Amino acid sequence: MTQPPVRIGVFDSGFGGLTVLRALLEQLPAAEFCYLGDSARLPYGSKSRETVARYAVESARLLENDGSQYLVIACNTASALALDAIRESVQVPVLGVIETGADSAAAVSVSRDVLVLATDATVQSHAYGAACAERGMRALEQACPLLVPLIEEGWTSANQDPERVAVTRRVLQLYLEEAAGRAADAGMTPDTLLLGCTHYPLLRDMLDLLAPANIRILDSAQTTARRVQRELGAPAAATSSASATSRRCRFLATDSVEKFQSLGSRFLGQPIREVEHIDLGG
Amino acid sequence: MTQPPVRIGVFDSGFGGLTVLRALLEQLPAAEFCYLGDSARLPYGSKSRETVARYAVESARLLENDGSQYLVIACNTASALALDAIRESVQVPVLGVIETGADSAAAVSVSRDVLVLATDATVQSHAYGAACAERGMRALEQACPLLVPLIEEGWTSANQDPERVAVTRRVLQLYLEEAAGRAADAGMTPDTLLLGCTHYPLLRDMLDLLAPANIRILDSAQTTARRVQRELGAPAAATSSASATSRRCRFLATDSVEKFQSLGSRFLGQPIREVEHIDLGG
Repeated sequence: MTQPPVRIGVFDSGFGGLTVLRALLEQLPAAEFCYLGDSARLPYGSKSRETVARYAVESARLLENDGSQYLVIACNTASALALDAIRESVQVPVLGVIETGADSAAAVSVSRDVLVLATDATVQSHAYGAACAERGMRALEQACPLLVPLIEEGWTSANQDPERVAVTRRVLQLYLEEAAGRAADAGMTPDTLLLGCTHYPLLRDMLDLLAPANIRILDSAQTTARRVQRELGAPAAATSSASATSRRCRFLATDSVEKFQSLGSRFLGQPIREVEHIDLGG
Repeated sequence: MTQPPVRIGVFDSGFGGLTVLRALLEQLPAAEFCYLGDSARLPYGSKSRETVARYAVESARLLENDGSQYLVIACNTASALALDAIRESVQVPVLGVIETGADSAAAVSVSRDVLVLATDATVQSHAYGAACAERGMRALEQACPLLVPLIEEGWTSANQDPERVAVTRRVLQLYLEEAAGRAADAGMTPDTLLLGCTHYPLLRDMLDLLAPANIRILDSAQTTARRVQRELGAPAAATSSASATSRRCRFLATDSVEKFQSLGSRFLGQPIREVEHIDLGG
């Protein structure tokens, strides 16, 4: 008798978590997924801890009720501000992207100084700082609040007007320069850069060019997917089975399904065919 | 016997409407105000019509229940997507910023072509297009989705790093160039520029420099305040009484009151001392 496939719930405030789902689909070819994007209430990054926790708990409960046996909080803001609240409100195991990011940094950093790029709320929560300190490292947390809107506008894509892509490159450069100045002031020498926002994998090419050559870039989508695979004892994927996504993943959104399809496809790296609208009463 | 002061409710998804409140405080020195910023659910500009209407109706009812005898929807997205829904849900008169903007353009435009800068949702609603058409004008609606985040980050202020202000100037320039190209393609010759977002008055200095010299810039905060004054038959203010704001205005916010105070003060042009947190159940 074949075991039924494990069902994994993936939650984000919007579309960025689709970079994590993309990695999960590739790493866990036998699993089924339900992705919930709370797009009606995004962005979480600018909201208070209480508000983010209330939203995230509602979403986590919905995924548990839908049958998820494992929850991935693919949203740095919710992982930073609401992980404990989520764990208290559901029965299934819950994994956040911050712990996995800090673990992967701890595995590779030699200088034990880590640069973290993230949204305002994630930085203000100092969740990466705390997670790095627990692992004997120091985190330089750099808020980059304009990157998410620039990415969502697509001012990063190869097929976009180069003058617009240059704006994003300039903004990223200004944030990296600010971080370098702060590192120097604090006597820190980061050798590892953590992408502390699930949108940022879409800036990977730009970061490879702009970040100092001696810094290793860690993508939390990849590290999270490998962690889930390990925890579930799932076999490593030989090849990606992303072509079967529509059979293997249910997509839920709290706002416009059309917008979720068009914007989300960029993050998932493939077309999203069917999206169900749900109302969380917000 | 002195008449009790008229109470005016002012609603926005966040902070931008404070530019309208600022103009109202100056134009109506005898009125009292209640300002509601639905900051937990901002930005409305990226959300669907149904979501925006639901949020806006809840807020309008709250202001009516609080005693407002007149409502100003100081939010272009809500005026574009939800004005009818709001009017159906409350008993008091409701004024939106789009009608007043279109009226003011109709009063000054000679070419009868109007350039409107706005958020995505406002543009997609074509509310300015329809309002201008009703007044015998054509509107060129230009979406400028990155301006709100840049303004909220303060990359516009005189006291900000000039390299950051240069990014905002460049983004504004790219949007104006796109609009000019579209105007040429459509054979339009706009002589009037409407600020179709209540954040944009904070870009006024930049717009004065970047917009073609033959274009007249209309600020919807100013035009809305004059319209309310006229409709209520209130005397014109000889001088601003903005110093007494804390006595004359109650501030409500659905998210962090600290953030409302710090960010909002930039939009209001003076410190905001007391903000009450309210929960709209979202």
